[in-house]
Amino acid sequence: MDTPKHLQGLPHVVVLGAGFAGLNFCKSFDGRARVTLVDRQNHHLFQPLLYQVAMAALSAPEIAEPVRTIFRDRENVVVLMDEAKKIDLQKREVELAQNTLKYDYLVCGLGGTKTYFGNEQWEALAPGLKSLEDAMRIRRHLLQSFERAETTNDPEERKRLMTIVVVGGGPTGVELAGSMAELCKRVFKKDFRRIDTRESRVILVHSNGRILEEYPEDLSESGKKQLASLGVEIILDNKVVDIQRHHVELSDGTRIDTENVLWGAGVKANPITAGLGIELARGGRVPVDPDLSLASRGHPEVFFVGDIVSIRQEDGEPVPGVAPAAIQMGKHVARLIEERLERQVMSSAGGDATRPFRYWDKGMMATIGRMRAVAWTGDIPLIRGLKMTGLLAWLGWLTIHIAYLVGFRNRVAVFLSWVYSYASFRRGARIIISPEQDVSDHDATSSAVDTVALPA
Amino acid sequence: MDTPKHLQGLPHVVVLGAGFAGLNFCKSFDGRARVTLVDRQNHHLFQPLLYQVAMAALSAPEIAEPVRTIFRDRENVVVLMDEAKKIDLQKREVELAQNTLKYDYLVCGLGGTKTYFGNEQWEALAPGLKSLEDAMRIRRHLLQSFERAETTNDPEERKRLMTIVVVGGGPTGVELAGSMAELCKRVFKKDFRRIDTRESRVILVHSNGRILEEYPEDLSESGKKQLASLGVEIILDNKVVDIQRHHVELSDGTRIDTENVLWGAGVKANPITAGLGIELARGGRVPVDPDLSLASRGHPEVFFVGDIVSIRQEDGEPVPGVAPAAIQMGKHVARLIEERLERQVMSSAGGDATRPFRYWDKGMMATIGRMRAVAWTGDIPLIRGLKMTGLLAWLGWLTIHIAYLVGFRNRVAVFLSWVYSYASFRRGARIIISPEQDVSDHDATSSAVDTVALPA
Repeated sequence: MDTPKHLQGLPHVVVLGAGFAGLNFCKSFDGRARVTLVDRQNHHLFQPLLYQVAMAALSAPEIAEPVRTIFRDRENVVVLMDEAKKIDLQKREVELAQNTLKYDYLVCGLGGTKTYFGNEQWEALAPGLKSLEDAMRIRRHLLQSFERAETTNDPEERKRLMTIVVVGGGPTGVELAGSMAELCKRVFKKDFRRIDTRESRVILVHSNGRILEEYPEDLSESGKKQLASLGVEIILDNKVVDIQRHHVELSDGTRIDTENVLWGAGVKANPITAGLGIELARGGRVPVDPDLSLASRGHPEVFFVGDIVSIRQEDGEPVPGVAPAAIQMGKHVARLIEERLERQVMSSAGGDATRPFRYWDKGMMATIGRMRAVAWTGDIPLIRGLKMTGLLAWLGWLTIHIAYLVGFRNRVAVFLSWVYSYASFRRGARIIISPEQDVSDHDATSSAVDTVALPA
Repeated sequence: MDTPKHLQGLPHVVVLGAGFAGLNFCKSFDGRARVTLVDRQNHHLFQPLLYQVAMAALSAPEIAEPVRTIFRDRENVVVLMDEAKKIDLQKREVELAQNTLKYDYLVCGLGGTKTYFGNEQWEALAPGLKSLEDAMRIRRHLLQSFERAETTNDPEERKRLMTIVVVGGGPTGVELAGSMAELCKRVFKKDFRRIDTRESRVILVHSNGRILEEYPEDLSESGKKQLASLGVEIILDNKVVDIQRHHVELSDGTRIDTENVLWGAGVKANPITAGLGIELARGGRVPVDPDLSLASRGHPEVFFVGDIVSIRQEDGEPVPGVAPAAIQMGKHVARLIEERLERQVMSSAGGDATRPFRYWDKGMMATIGRMRAVAWTGDIPLIRGLKMTGLLAWLGWLTIHIAYLVGFRNRVAVFLSWVYSYASFRRGARIIISPEQDVSDHDATSSAVDTVALPA
């Protein structure tokens, strides 16, 4: 298929992935070049709020914005919905599922994918949370578990259906566990007649001695207390060693009967890095040069940005896999490529003096539920190193997440949804869209036990 | 499972289906009885706006409200998410997929399901529009077709992907065709770089000589003109006789190459009526007594309401299968059962003098697109028999649909979404949630053709 006329003859920048890094590259890039942005989804997803879609607090379109809409007025940006399969550094081309693209510059922000550390068969029983599809699956499964708990005549099954195990005590696991406890114990309370939803259990299992281990110790401690105040049971220094349809088993031999397991534990880089033919860092991440390129490997025209990258800050600490780092990387590379295009200087053998990437760590925050959160400001003048917990941290979290949402419509919609659900303790998006699919999740035994006459 | 304590000893009213009829029965019923409302979905769906979810103008939760939330403060209403399989009139019980319920009164509002008139294999290629699942499927398929049209190198395939055939010229078909033409020709316009979306075709095929045949003739004519002004091609007096993956065939031999077929043609009653052991009316509908019960068949305790019913008005015309009729039926039966419970009189052998149902026909309306509609007021004092077209009809349509939406939150959300999309010509819900699934829709040939290198 031909290049649109007005873009012919311009240098070609191929951007892989419309996550925070790729999107912010395209938004801020202002050089004379044609840009092709490739993503296997048709939308940019605001990952930090994905757990709220899983928890039925937000609807899917509220946290996603079609990529085409974002760039509809940028005539030099062509969007392709396709999947990147292989990067050929020598030929300077990317193989997609349906096409092959030649590039002058490559910006790869394909991010990460969940990993079950060799137990990939657990995926069927313990969904992780990376895509809208995942979120909808978790929502559907959870709502159906409570519907089944309401109808079943078997007290053991009812208990199992009302027990939720969250694996992993990082920010994702903590957000999931906290909002899950609110949903099950409080939001559901008035909706069911036969079960007492306050009896539902939410159990967080973490392999380390404290949750949120990247945070200062007192914030971890506060997070733990805030979770406990919502009724979440926390199991530390313990690993999940087996996941079955009706239970999980921990490394100390504990067995928890449950039909709801959520995976918030492992992330590794997109498998495309394996085909690069270079030595990779932990989790398949790409060890880039300080300017985020592969210049020292002979490819100054190739950049990696976002979670797919392994790079250290000046103090030797690794740059964390968080949204602000991805955004900053995208913008950094946009500046570098603009400058190179202007100067028309480019050596193909490394040694090009390009500015190193510097991560501006503005801090981190995790929400734990309604009016509960922990936050820690980073390198921000006047409030450097400030720690916040509870309501104040939560208000900060709300503000920042609304501000960074892509699209005015989404900001208004999310704001209104939050006002509604926090004020009314209801959830707008508690809709099971395709119950048929999940019915096949039940095993034959439990279905048979279900078919018992109700006393009239 | 036991009856909750506070409801024990009360007469039991079982309501099947949380559509307009069943929901309005429960909402308005105020008798001393316990009510069990059974639906296979966990939500009440506002059917009249379902096509807007398919067209990416609204998100699924905006037009659906969880049934449990609607009745959370009505302690005598128990909600079961389950599927009704069989009604046993003699034993006075309903078999569900997971339980069996005994009843003192039965209110069955299970509505209709789509039919392909014996060609049920067409379902896989030509989705109808009855559930949220259907709407999401149509949305996904349509968005993907345009994504594929943008990437393909085969001009024939591109044309096929940009051609949409809507089967059936009733209100659903007309609404689908009109909003589809807007979406493809206007909303998409600025989003794609390689295809000119104004070249997309929307074709409406109708078996009768005029569309909207239940409407007065001049409104049909106006509807046709308004559709044409949006660029919809209308084929009358013609039937679809074959649907294949890459084309449809009409009764006059015309062949239309397309990969997007929408089915807006046939509706029949829920198949549960076949097991009743009584003679049914057209489309499997239940020919009830004038009071909507089966009294003359010995079952004054059994009522049918909504689209599942076949009943005539005083002038001999059948009551149409529309939302206002279903709502009125639900309320009518609520009054009848309340009165019987009060009097404690009930003969089991028919002859009970109960008020006949009277349909108050307030008119009908169909929207055709932005600022386009037809409306015809019915038996409303002062404006009886008024015909409206264009902007005025459209404003009337907007007002009434927002007013009848269930749930305050939904009303606000839908209103804001409409203001946004009508003002900006964008669509908020243009998100493809699970692209993987649709990829398998493509046949092997077209995928192979897709794998062609782009010129650099």
